[in-house]
Amino acid sequence: MARTKGGDMGERRDSRLALLDATASLLSERSTIEVSLSEIAKTSGLNSALIKYYFGGKEGLLLALLERVAERSMADLANLVAMEIPAEQKLRIHIGGIINTYYRSPYLNRLINYMIARGDPASSQKVAKIFVEPMVAAYRAMVAQGVAEGAFRPMDPGMLYYSVVGACEHVFYAGYSLPTTLGLSELTEQVRQQYVQHVLDLVFHGVLARPRAV
Amino acid sequence: MARTKGGDMGERRDSRLALLDATASLLSERSTIEVSLSEIAKTSGLNSALIKYYFGGKEGLLLALLERVAERSMADLANLVAMEIPAEQKLRIHIGGIINTYYRSPYLNRLINYMIARGDPASSQKVAKIFVEPMVAAYRAMVAQGVAEGAFRPMDPGMLYYSVVGACEHVFYAGYSLPTTLGLSELTEQVRQQYVQHVLDLVFHGVLARPRAV
Repeated sequence: MARTKGGDMGERRDSRLALLDATASLLSERSTIEVSLSEIAKTSGLNSALIKYYFGGKEGLLLALLERVAERSMADLANLVAMEIPAEQKLRIHIGGIINTYYRSPYLNRLINYMIARGDPASSQKVAKIFVEPMVAAYRAMVAQGVAEGAFRPMDPGMLYYSVVGACEHVFYAGYSLPTTLGLSELTEQVRQQYVQHVLDLVFHGVLARPRAV
Repeated sequence: MARTKGGDMGERRDSRLALLDATASLLSERSTIEVSLSEIAKTSGLNSALIKYYFGGKEGLLLALLERVAERSMADLANLVAMEIPAEQKLRIHIGGIINTYYRSPYLNRLINYMIARGDPASSQKVAKIFVEPMVAAYRAMVAQGVAEGAFRPMDPGMLYYSVVGACEHVFYAGYSLPTTLGLSELTEQVRQQYVQHVLDLVFHGVLARPRAV
């Protein structure tokens, strides 16, 4: 990895990144949030004391990982909403984006739920701040634009947020059920693409063979 | 409570029910799965030793609670699927049913996720057996009927299961976000009804003002 002149800063960034990457990699492989400091140290090739040094401990490390995923996806979402394209196209791209985010970071839901289930209001507020606020702002903007364009029927943006995100994410949370539902042991790239198409069809057309307006 | 001639059996059933009701009540009040044996004992008015006696411990108690919710909802679902009414009507009633189940038992998701996150394959298989298998069987039957009636377009029943259940449940999992999304501190009966209507509109009509076929 390239080292900058400010060698200490560069090294600090490299070690932080290596620890976050190791944690993401370990969490992606398992169906729980249980990951030990010694496993992270082993996978990253770094001393576990560095986790305490950089993140204050495991909780801080997990929160930093969540913030990293949030920063990337929410920056993409803000760029999408600001684009000069029809709202229908924005919502289509956004749906593909949610499913891809969960596909790339299958631990995302577990991590969010872990933060919330700790029962610490500060953690829940943090998750609401980094994920929910920018998402709901994007839904408000997309629904307003789509209705103004005559493309969307009027809808509650908050309810649309829950229903669309829920439709996108449940398959990633419920990995244990894949053999029963889809006859698969894991989600493949091909099934991910099929699922994007399924959600797009459902959200834009509903289930009816001959769609009717509400 | 009425006592039968077989007094021991009646008492056993009463105590089991009282412990399950106390657990359900405590879990409904909080946003985590953390509930202590002494809290359950206090709320039920029974000795905490009975939890070990009847359920083998807290894990067994939580599994029994999950099974009770599953038995009731899956029996309703099987009855619904067997009715001689159009598939469209069945899917509408089913969507209201899922949302009502989560509304009545807001701990349901947390309980399922807790069982799965333990990483014990037996727990995950149990959840798949009592919830996912009957649900997917119902989706297969409803989609086949709806397509045969010319009402539904052809769809993958497993994918429809994930997307519809996800659209129904996410709002109940993400209670911490209600102030941000809907400007509410909790889900009221009125909002529950509005959310049922929102999901019905989405699943049957999609978001477009002038619906098009796929």
